Amino acid sequence: MFKKLFAEFLGTFWLVFGGCGSAVLAAAFPEVGIGLLGVSLAFGLTVVTMAYAVGSVSGGHFNPAVSIGLMVAGRFPASSLIPYAIAQVAGAVAAAAVLYLVASGKADFQLGGFASNGYGEHSPGSYSLLSALVMEVVMTAFFLFIILGATSHRFPVGFAPLAIGLALTLIHLVSIPVTNTSVNPARSTGVALFVGDWALSQLWLFWVAPILGAVLGAIAWRAVGEAE
Amino acid sequence: MFKKLFAEFLGTFWLVFGGCGSAVLAAAFPEVGIGLLGVSLAFGLTVVTMAYAVGSVSGGHFNPAVSIGLMVAGRFPASSLIPYAIAQVAGAVAAAAVLYLVASGKADFQLGGFASNGYGEHSPGSYSLLSALVMEVVMTAFFLFIILGATSHRFPVGFAPLAIGLALTLIHLVSIPVTNTSVNPARSTGVALFVGDWALSQLWLFWVAPILGAVLGAIAWRAVGEAE
Amino acid sequence: MFKKLFAEFLGTFWLVFGGCGSAVLAAAFPEVGIGLLGVSLAFGLTVVTMAYAVGSVSGGHFNPAVSIGLMVAGRFPASSLIPYAIAQVAGAVAAAAVLYLVASGKADFQLGGFASNGYGEHSPGSYSLLSALVMEVVMTAFFLFIILGATSHRFPVGFAPLAIGLALTLIHLVSIPVTNTSVNPARSTGVALFVGDWALSQLWLFWVAPILGAVLGAIAWRAVGEAE
Amino acid sequence: MFKKLFAEFLGTFWLVFGGCGSAVLAAAFPEVGIGLLGVSLAFGLTVVTMAYAVGSVSGGHFNPAVSIGLMVAGRFPASSLIPYAIAQVAGAVAAAAVLYLVASGKADFQLGGFASNGYGEHSPGSYSLLSALVMEVVMTAFFLFIILGATSHRFPVGFAPLAIGLALTLIHLVSIPVTNTSVNPARSTGVALFVGDWALSQLWLFWVAPILGAVLGAIAWRAVGEAE
Repeated sequence: MFKKLFAEFLGTFWLVFGGCGSAVLAAAFPEVGIGLLGVSLAFGLTVVTMAYAVGSVSGGHFNPAVSIGLMVAGRFPASSLIPYAIAQVAGAVAAAAVLYLVASGKADFQLGGFASNGYGEHSPGSYSLLSALVMEVVMTAFFLFIILGATSHRFPVGFAPLAIGLALTLIHLVSIPVTNTSVNPARSTGVALFVGDWALSQLWLFWVAPILGAVLGAIAWRAVGEAE
Repeated sequence: MFKKLFAEFLGTFWLVFGGCGSAVLAAAFPEVGIGLLGVSLAFGLTVVTMAYAVGSVSGGHFNPAVSIGLMVAGRFPASSLIPYAIAQVAGAVAAAAVLYLVASGKADFQLGGFASNGYGEHSPGSYSLLSALVMEVVMTAFFLFIILGATSHRFPVGFAPLAIGLALTLIHLVSIPVTNTSVNPARSTGVALFVGDWALSQLWLFWVAPILGAVLGAIAWRAVGEAE
Repeated sequence: MFKKLFAEFLGTFWLVFGGCGSAVLAAAFPEVGIGLLGVSLAFGLTVVTMAYAVGSVSGGHFNPAVSIGLMVAGRFPASSLIPYAIAQVAGAVAAAAVLYLVASGKADFQLGGFASNGYGEHSPGSYSLLSALVMEVVMTAFFLFIILGATSHRFPVGFAPLAIGLALTLIHLVSIPVTNTSVNPARSTGVALFVGDWALSQLWLFWVAPILGAVLGAIAWRAVGEAE
Repeated sequence: MFKKLFAEFLGTFWLVFGGCGSAVLAAAFPEVGIGLLGVSLAFGLTVVTMAYAVGSVSGGHFNPAVSIGLMVAGRFPASSLIPYAIAQVAGAVAAAAVLYLVASGKADFQLGGFASNGYGEHSPGSYSLLSALVMEVVMTAFFLFIILGATSHRFPVGFAPLAIGLALTLIHLVSIPVTNTSVNPARSTGVALFVGDWALSQLWLFWVAPILGAVLGAIAWRAVGEAE
């Protein structure tokens, strides 16, 4: 179990350090910044790479909503849920701390949103709470649906990390303007702790909506994919 | 059959919600927008991810022109064509509805083209009807040719979703300026219903041209690839 | 043999229509254009997709320099070289013609460089003949080296189209500013015929340099990879 | 052994010529430049392509820090370390020389940073020495961790080049603004020799930090992945 939890800790660290790091450090770099497209690619590649590295150790969730969805789908034991979630949140917080250390090492550093998720006036594009809620639920539902489909036993096992990581890239390509994209409560929590204030007071949505979406995705998969 | 149709419904929903969603919400986001490159990637990744998820359930068409092309190539039963097309169009319409709900949740929302396809003055780059027709026919023909080739039994099965999804990305990289890229009548119909007006009156082209292209692509494949 | 030549014709058509088409139609589209990054991706994806579609039919060269390099490496019969090269050039010319038809279908159409290759004052970044020569030789040499390595029998066969197509993307990411990137005499010839003038008078370089590079790449591979 | 060293020489040549070449020639090309996203993709694709080409010949390190990390993990013999490192640095220097030849072939050529790595006033975003040190250590540690995981015997062998190359893309997406991204002492040395001055005086960091990170990554992998 230690190996699994350490793998989840490192994987979620990498997701936050790579994904949020690209947003904080490189997205708006003058003239040659990577933009939302680069950030979307970065988030996806954190999952592609770590799923190849430790997918066979821990399953490669890196996300409490994913763990819950897999549990609902009968692929993950309920007894492991809390330890997994703790390791995931711890990894996200550690990554945010190291990212803060690096990012603050320049003269004109400003914390800004620090890649936190938000809605209403804290949505990147000023989308409402309802838009944010719908987007996060739909995106996490499809994310779980794709995870469950790509890891079913009908494809060669090696493709699942690509499918799942590229799904996360796609999700970011669509939804960064709405919520800055969570679909992952651990990722939201890690950076929100450093921003405090509004990021913490809006954090509830980025636990509720991804978990709700994950449950719906798992149910949808059971309707489509089971017992063929 | 229910599972197949539900898979086609969800897959086409994802194609429109992810592809058109990225165009509506993120393409022109100030300073860091994903541009046509990001939209092209998003459309392709909808197919990559859903083909890994449900390709083995329904075949992963998500597109009436693809279903017709596969039928012409002898790989899909004619009796399933109408149910598939209905499920695909229904998925596209549902996705456009949810996208409308999300997109309208900001103060300065304007519907605009809502990622609809068009020609003449409604082509993104003001290309003529003839240019639009040729582009859609050629692109759908090669799309079907690649689908038929990549799913023939000479490659390990796992690569087909990558090849097909990346073909859709390529198609968008070239043809968004001409028609906003359809090659998929369901995708065109879903968003056109919300725009009405010119989008509906030009919709015929995005049924006729993709279907014609799909038939040509299937015929070309029979000349090159069969019976080796 | 007809199937092989038709596959090479279609594959080279796709390479020029997709690659040069993205450059002509979408690279500099106002505000959301795909830029040189999108063009690089498009060229690579033409090869990824067509190699999955017809790689097992014709070998998937789509490029006379590749055919020559494979011949030097002992993997392609000399007797097929001329027919292959004719099919490849014919495909490139046909693609340029269809691209011209589409591109000219707008009111303010200007032919411009039409994605032709050039050096000196016709290099996109005004690089000298020497820079252009070195770049094309080095790039084609590594392209052949990678093709030969990725298609040797030590990897699962399915990965070669990805490796080879992504190599072409990489080559474009580096060398478009220098020569607009050829590494493929057929691709250069197809569009040069429509530009005439300087594009034809500089065309010799984009036959000589890629062929020279291809021979060097094949020789380098024989030193590294054979008979292990 | 000659084949292995020649493969490492060519692979590191390709990494520097492709990665640094894209940065020097194409990143800031007017209006359609590839930006940091394109450069990140280019670096990653050098490794993807060459690992498919010669991974089975030499292991495909192309980086002294990788060789050291693999040695610490027990996967690479200590006796080969010095020859490998010499071949890698020689390849990087040769690539920088050819890149200099090409890049200087335009009228208004200026050497600039020539894609060298730096910190403090020579960091692209003016990040401190501490930020640079932390970033390079963390990034190289995860790079080795992913390399060791993706090449363990639990996945089909063909996916490792993708996972490892895309990890390098991700690393660049995050860290170019901080150090211009090294994680590879050979890559840093090749271009620094042509810049001299500050690039040479800061070069120590891009040997020390990647090597330290590689050792940490190998240790972390032993905790997570061994003996399952």
